[in-house]
Amino acid sequence: MSDGGRFHQVYRDTVLYPDFRFARLHLWKHFLDAMTAHVLTVRELDDPVVKAQGADIDDLLTAISTLRAEPLPEYQPDVPDLYFAFNDRLEAELGREPVSFLRLGLSRNDLDMTVYKMRSRELLLSILVRLCQLREALQEQARAHLETILIAQTHHQPGQPTTVAHYLGAIDNALARDTDRLLESYARLNTCPQGAAALAGSSHQLDRHLTARLLGFDAPVPNTYDAVASADWQVEFMGCLQSVALNLSRFVCDLLTWASDGSFQLPDTLVQGSSIMPQKRNPVALEHARTRLSRTLGSSQMVLYSNHNIPYTDLNDFGPDIQGALVSIFIQIDGALALLAVALQEGRFDRRRLAELARCTDTIATELADVLTRRLGMSFQEAHALAGALVLKLCEENRELQEATSDDLVALGGPEIEARVLRDALDPWIFVTRRSGFGGPAPEAMRSQLERMTHHRERTLDRLAEIQTTLHEARARLAASGREIE
Amino acid sequence: MSDGGRFHQVYRDTVLYPDFRFARLHLWKHFLDAMTAHVLTVRELDDPVVKAQGADIDDLLTAISTLRAEPLPEYQPDVPDLYFAFNDRLEAELGREPVSFLRLGLSRNDLDMTVYKMRSRELLLSILVRLCQLREALQEQARAHLETILIAQTHHQPGQPTTVAHYLGAIDNALARDTDRLLESYARLNTCPQGAAALAGSSHQLDRHLTARLLGFDAPVPNTYDAVASADWQVEFMGCLQSVALNLSRFVCDLLTWASDGSFQLPDTLVQGSSIMPQKRNPVALEHARTRLSRTLGSSQMVLYSNHNIPYTDLNDFGPDIQGALVSIFIQIDGALALLAVALQEGRFDRRRLAELARCTDTIATELADVLTRRLGMSFQEAHALAGALVLKLCEENRELQEATSDDLVALGGPEIEARVLRDALDPWIFVTRRSGFGGPAPEAMRSQLERMTHHRERTLDRLAEIQTTLHEARARLAASGREIE
Amino acid sequence: MSDGGRFHQVYRDTVLYPDFRFARLHLWKHFLDAMTAHVLTVRELDDPVVKAQGADIDDLLTAISTLRAEPLPEYQPDVPDLYFAFNDRLEAELGREPVSFLRLGLSRNDLDMTVYKMRSRELLLSILVRLCQLREALQEQARAHLETILIAQTHHQPGQPTTVAHYLGAIDNALARDTDRLLESYARLNTCPQGAAALAGSSHQLDRHLTARLLGFDAPVPNTYDAVASADWQVEFMGCLQSVALNLSRFVCDLLTWASDGSFQLPDTLVQGSSIMPQKRNPVALEHARTRLSRTLGSSQMVLYSNHNIPYTDLNDFGPDIQGALVSIFIQIDGALALLAVALQEGRFDRRRLAELARCTDTIATELADVLTRRLGMSFQEAHALAGALVLKLCEENRELQEATSDDLVALGGPEIEARVLRDALDPWIFVTRRSGFGGPAPEAMRSQLERMTHHRERTLDRLAEIQTTLHEARARLAASGREIE
Amino acid sequence: MSDGGRFHQVYRDTVLYPDFRFARLHLWKHFLDAMTAHVLTVRELDDPVVKAQGADIDDLLTAISTLRAEPLPEYQPDVPDLYFAFNDRLEAELGREPVSFLRLGLSRNDLDMTVYKMRSRELLLSILVRLCQLREALQEQARAHLETILIAQTHHQPGQPTTVAHYLGAIDNALARDTDRLLESYARLNTCPQGAAALAGSSHQLDRHLTARLLGFDAPVPNTYDAVASADWQVEFMGCLQSVALNLSRFVCDLLTWASDGSFQLPDTLVQGSSIMPQKRNPVALEHARTRLSRTLGSSQMVLYSNHNIPYTDLNDFGPDIQGALVSIFIQIDGALALLAVALQEGRFDRRRLAELARCTDTIATELADVLTRRLGMSFQEAHALAGALVLKLCEENRELQEATSDDLVALGGPEIEARVLRDALDPWIFVTRRSGFGGPAPEAMRSQLERMTHHRERTLDRLAEIQTTLHEARARLAASGREIE
Repeated sequence: MSDGGRFHQVYRDTVLYPDFRFARLHLWKHFLDAMTAHVLTVRELDDPVVKAQGADIDDLLTAISTLRAEPLPEYQPDVPDLYFAFNDRLEAELGREPVSFLRLGLSRNDLDMTVYKMRSRELLLSILVRLCQLREALQEQARAHLETILIAQTHHQPGQPTTVAHYLGAIDNALARDTDRLLESYARLNTCPQGAAALAGSSHQLDRHLTARLLGFDAPVPNTYDAVASADWQVEFMGCLQSVALNLSRFVCDLLTWASDGSFQLPDTLVQGSSIMPQKRNPVALEHARTRLSRTLGSSQMVLYSNHNIPYTDLNDFGPDIQGALVSIFIQIDGALALLAVALQEGRFDRRRLAELARCTDTIATELADVLTRRLGMSFQEAHALAGALVLKLCEENRELQEATSDDLVALGGPEIEARVLRDALDPWIFVTRRSGFGGPAPEAMRSQLERMTHHRERTLDRLAEIQTTLHEARARLAASGREIE
Repeated sequence: MSDGGRFHQVYRDTVLYPDFRFARLHLWKHFLDAMTAHVLTVRELDDPVVKAQGADIDDLLTAISTLRAEPLPEYQPDVPDLYFAFNDRLEAELGREPVSFLRLGLSRNDLDMTVYKMRSRELLLSILVRLCQLREALQEQARAHLETILIAQTHHQPGQPTTVAHYLGAIDNALARDTDRLLESYARLNTCPQGAAALAGSSHQLDRHLTARLLGFDAPVPNTYDAVASADWQVEFMGCLQSVALNLSRFVCDLLTWASDGSFQLPDTLVQGSSIMPQKRNPVALEHARTRLSRTLGSSQMVLYSNHNIPYTDLNDFGPDIQGALVSIFIQIDGALALLAVALQEGRFDRRRLAELARCTDTIATELADVLTRRLGMSFQEAHALAGALVLKLCEENRELQEATSDDLVALGGPEIEARVLRDALDPWIFVTRRSGFGGPAPEAMRSQLERMTHHRERTLDRLAEIQTTLHEARARLAASGREIE
Repeated sequence: MSDGGRFHQVYRDTVLYPDFRFARLHLWKHFLDAMTAHVLTVRELDDPVVKAQGADIDDLLTAISTLRAEPLPEYQPDVPDLYFAFNDRLEAELGREPVSFLRLGLSRNDLDMTVYKMRSRELLLSILVRLCQLREALQEQARAHLETILIAQTHHQPGQPTTVAHYLGAIDNALARDTDRLLESYARLNTCPQGAAALAGSSHQLDRHLTARLLGFDAPVPNTYDAVASADWQVEFMGCLQSVALNLSRFVCDLLTWASDGSFQLPDTLVQGSSIMPQKRNPVALEHARTRLSRTLGSSQMVLYSNHNIPYTDLNDFGPDIQGALVSIFIQIDGALALLAVALQEGRFDRRRLAELARCTDTIATELADVLTRRLGMSFQEAHALAGALVLKLCEENRELQEATSDDLVALGGPEIEARVLRDALDPWIFVTRRSGFGGPAPEAMRSQLERMTHHRERTLDRLAEIQTTLHEARARLAASGREIE
Repeated sequence: MSDGGRFHQVYRDTVLYPDFRFARLHLWKHFLDAMTAHVLTVRELDDPVVKAQGADIDDLLTAISTLRAEPLPEYQPDVPDLYFAFNDRLEAELGREPVSFLRLGLSRNDLDMTVYKMRSRELLLSILVRLCQLREALQEQARAHLETILIAQTHHQPGQPTTVAHYLGAIDNALARDTDRLLESYARLNTCPQGAAALAGSSHQLDRHLTARLLGFDAPVPNTYDAVASADWQVEFMGCLQSVALNLSRFVCDLLTWASDGSFQLPDTLVQGSSIMPQKRNPVALEHARTRLSRTLGSSQMVLYSNHNIPYTDLNDFGPDIQGALVSIFIQIDGALALLAVALQEGRFDRRRLAELARCTDTIATELADVLTRRLGMSFQEAHALAGALVLKLCEENRELQEATSDDLVALGGPEIEARVLRDALDPWIFVTRRSGFGGPAPEAMRSQLERMTHHRERTLDRLAEIQTTLHEARARLAASGREIE
């Protein structure tokens, strides 16, 4: 089955070719950056050979820089990977000697892991940006609906009145925690493996702090074995995405319910009709968001299984063999976040419909029980029972709860109560405004909550900008480093 | 963000375009087959309109047939999917009227589900073929190693002597069960949704049995709601793959151990060296197989999550949104099976190395205990203790177990024993040949076991050939159906 | 930290004691059965020692039989497990010699695996019984609601009219497949490891077919290594439960929606109130069923991880360490099935509420489009567009779809249509009755579908009864075998 | 099936009774603490009724305090949960009126979530303590083996020499990240839901900051809806455990390999023998640790599934129905950590065996290639090829790599090399000492790394002590609060 080449045809087809294609699409820049940073670090060695051959090293840097502008190497059956293909190009141009400085103290183990981390931090940052966009849309909707009453369900039954803002604030708080998780995991991810060589570091006194800085890492990984053998940064990344995906799967669940009952209207550009059912206006954008979250959750398990019950050393499992998975997981969560952001930006909560739903519910009974307790000194149990009985009575008489009178209460063996007090007790808006404590839905409480949340989001964006600047400057410096020599 | 078109740019980018591209690559033939089968079923309707417009229907069949040879439609922003793109083509050629026979009693719900099942049964059958190839390689290796002693480990310690054939026979038995599972699941998968329309069937008396037969299905799904709303065939498919992947992950674990200790030699075309460690000969093909199994296990969870806590009806979750996942899971398991098949076909168990390892172990102690029980009437406990003490003694004296003499036993307070009996008791080959009961490693027992397993594999292949013939004939008939009319 | 005993205190606390307690609760009968069957098999050996000591063997059988009636052994720190504790008891009573027949050719490897399979087949059968109960409740509800119109949703929007029976029939079909899966997996599970000893079988010619028969197994596992090393029967069991859990999670999703909108009424004994919201009537039984399904799905992953990337040999991972997990997974799925069975038995679909919901929907538009196509020769596209426009018009005029007249159509540029035809086209009941093809909701079609499903369930119950009889008789024989000797 | 009681027998058996039993075992103290804190907060209300009935409130506090010393309430079929059972007791003693202060503004929603978080933070802290113990054992072993050469494997083949300390340092670094993750997640978990009532907070101006402080929380949850509806703290907890479990599953994989080849010796109290194979000394403690990690990973999925595709509101899924799961997951990871800690504390790395394994390997070839590059100015590629050829030559001549001479190199077309330089290049200890850069295995580098790691662990312990003190003081204050009144 083999054509006499170095590798088996099956091995080429299932491993080498797909990996090469992936690296060519997703990793080539990072490889060139990491190679450049390594050569720059080698150039700083306090070593007579290095000193003597400074010109060779500069030529090497220039040649690497030139690779950036050239068409990428094509897959060749006997070249194991893109890094070797770059190597071959460099040797073809410069000869073997100068290129040997590239391989001095560098292994594919540390190089690959560095490149993988560089790619993953981009994915992670990109998700953070998306989350901030979604949070912005949530906060804008919340600001617009500080006074829009929502009958919140609990246990699949109408529960209590609150506001759309209060509900969206809860989601926003959860997403704020998710952004915090991702930022904290970024700090753990963003340490540089390079300089670890195969696993024990190199006998050359390469300055790993310099390499790390050149590549935009916060620091070198503090144990060279750890640098090439650990993949918990992947596991933590997945853990963060699981939280995002689960939080949002629940939010989508509600949005779909509201899209069904008319409380939430998607723009026309996010619904689809049916080929056979003319009347349909399916909220498919939300459904597709849900499925992307489900796929994120499921496929994150790839990373877990790949890190399970394998030796603690450098391996393909969390190396080349999982990188494609990380990108495909990213595409799913990114798609979900993008769909939800536009749904929130362009969709609208229907005040009329929400008000209608609020009118026809008996969720206000809680408040009545509270008033009976507070005003008339009933025990909570008695008040609870009386409010329940009133609900039943009005329901049987086909009347709405807000139509209740003091006579109704008396008829049930309850106390007399002032008309105004009863009416107030049965007004959902009064219910909401009375809940003005810390974290409650009353507008003033929600307004200060929203300010805090907006501030939190802005701080996240500041931190993201800071990180992006660091990375951008590092990349620019590396891209220029061969050229500036010329 | 929208350009005034029907769908939002984000919706197009994250949903419509990738789905279209996927359908164009993976589903176009199945769509044309399913469309053809539907029109053929419509043509059989006992309906005056249909009778009257037979020529239109024939034109429609011819036009669909022509689509097979033409370049596939390109993605157009406002065309929701490939089916509509085909539709547009047909209408452009024939006008609206003839094409309406295609849409008569057909919904994307039943059409899509039919197409998805047609694609998945191909994947399933392809995995069955791969499994049979791997089983063949296992059986050949087993036949070659009926007399090659393997010291089987239990609990990460040398356990007992058996043969390579016996071990491989165990793996083969497990894979035989896996092929049975897949075949049984094929029977459940291979029922035809078409004719279910949106969910309630159509008011036209379409002959669903005919449609099913035309498309190579065993029968129509017996409840039209079930036909479009159920996806347990996907879940069962994943369940089967989980079993395959776990069984093989364990087999790979042993192969890697044996590749490390030299018992099993991969061909040169399946190993890779190191860029920094010249001596390395890494059994990477096995490692890559392992990672593909891990990814299979993890990504199968996508299907589970996508089917979790969603309404029981037609939805995107297990429809378009999971089809790409099914193909990517297939690529992983297929790659693992392909790598393992060549590893088994071209790798070899090293008799010399295995014999060496067998010589230096004390695993034969079990047999000695048995002999002491049987021959000398000791209780098993005493015999067990004595054999253990003998092991300890020889170990301390740096002698191998087979060098033990009757005097050694006596020195430990044991009974005298004939030299021949003791030698026999300590000969792993005699250990093996004595285990000739049903399922044991003795060559004659293994030979008849292998015959049964070979027979089982051949029956699986026969059944696969039968299924493939049915599908091939159905496809050929459908592909010809437009042309034969002309 | 150790008290000088054989095992470390931490090892005792985390491993030995919990395992002993578990075996004492769940496995003791199976141990005694398996031990009895082994001794009965030993008694049949064509061996002079065995022949000579027949009385000892009979005493051993009697002693094992006596253990059944005695209090179970308590945990002792230095006794590794319940089997050894039984052994110690037997030796204390009979002395070592007779008991050595128990250990002859028996290992904890094959004994444990046999016992585990015996326990798991009980769990599996118990789930099958529960599924049949649930199916019975589904079929009864379906029979009662052959004519109850349900507006089926697709994509979270009202889709088409069908009947409650048709919907429940879909669920029942899915569960029928699940029972088939479980029965097929039972056949693969129900093979006997015993006689495999440590892994290579024994040199005694123990009749493994006899042992298998005595223990109610269909046959011995046909490879002794496979017998102790394979655990795919656990994985397949989990695969079946995943399918059950996902199918039901979707059914519960709908039931909860219907409990919310009043279409489905749980009995009072399955709802709970709120401590603070007097009006609440939470459908918690369904919610708790959902959570038990989620836990089943999640915890089934324990079995997968435990079988991942471990050597293919006898190990604790799928042995003692997973048995507690299997029981706890069983408790979850069993609880879900029990809750759903009573919910279906005692809950009721509210005909009045369902009719109300059917009246206020425009889902009938599909039929109108069909009629326009069939009767008036419009193309489906035109008919589809016209029906859609009619829906929009009536919606704007605040009229229900059934009030539409021919004039409405004409006003939209459509054709004239007979009053009767239009009224029929807009009557959901006529919509349903016209869908009388194979698998459709029309009462006569559903009636014959229900007959088939009832028949399928009865065949499953017959097969279950047959299996239970076999197992019961085997158990009774074993329990009596010591006593009958006396 | 029901006995006329409030709840269905099946509901009681599957839901109420197990939940009650669980709460009685695991949550009773937390309930009493949370109830006490609530009443103390109510007492601070600036409300005339409250002011007037201060004595009632004090009686209530005393009565709650008394409950701490009394036997816990038994399960009663019609009492929904332990909280109601406490309530009933209090009412029986004090009458309804005083107890109504307990229910004022308190819901089971916020109470339960508070109690669940209080229990989970204990589990989380307990795992942190265990991790610190394991890290201590790792650091001690590392300190003892700064100079013990370990031939590290990569890709299942011997890779390069390093030290046991360097390897253990890598594991320790990974666990340090895991403790950081858990501590950060603690900060997110440790916010107080109480005061959120059903979801909207209460109309009484309860001081939620006071409640939080009383219960040892860092702050109240800043949105009351979020407080009762979010469960991402559970998901994050699981994410942290997944990382711990995967890191350790890989460490265990190596420990088992080393237990097999004799490099690592478990104490006798952590190994088990075989009932049939007298020679066995199975490293079962490690195997059982592995299985507990697998179960942790699998069962953590329960939390994920329970939080998937459910409404964003208060529900049973992540409430009562998952609490038992959290405890059972804890038991698994706790068992694994305990077993590994004693394995590391009492096991030993066998210097003699490790040295033996180091002698027989050719892993030093990397260094030779480096020396040829550095000293003799060869290109790395040539040096790499020459070192590889030398390995092959010596292997064929059955000589060890350290016996190589300059003549061997010359015979392969290589350069002459000084004897001392060649010998040094082939000495693994020199290989190690030369790797003295940041993070490398050279003793001085490792020593400073270990210092940093020890310091990190100590800071973690300090933070844990601080947290434990806060919680302890809060608990003590609450436990005393009823009594101090008397």
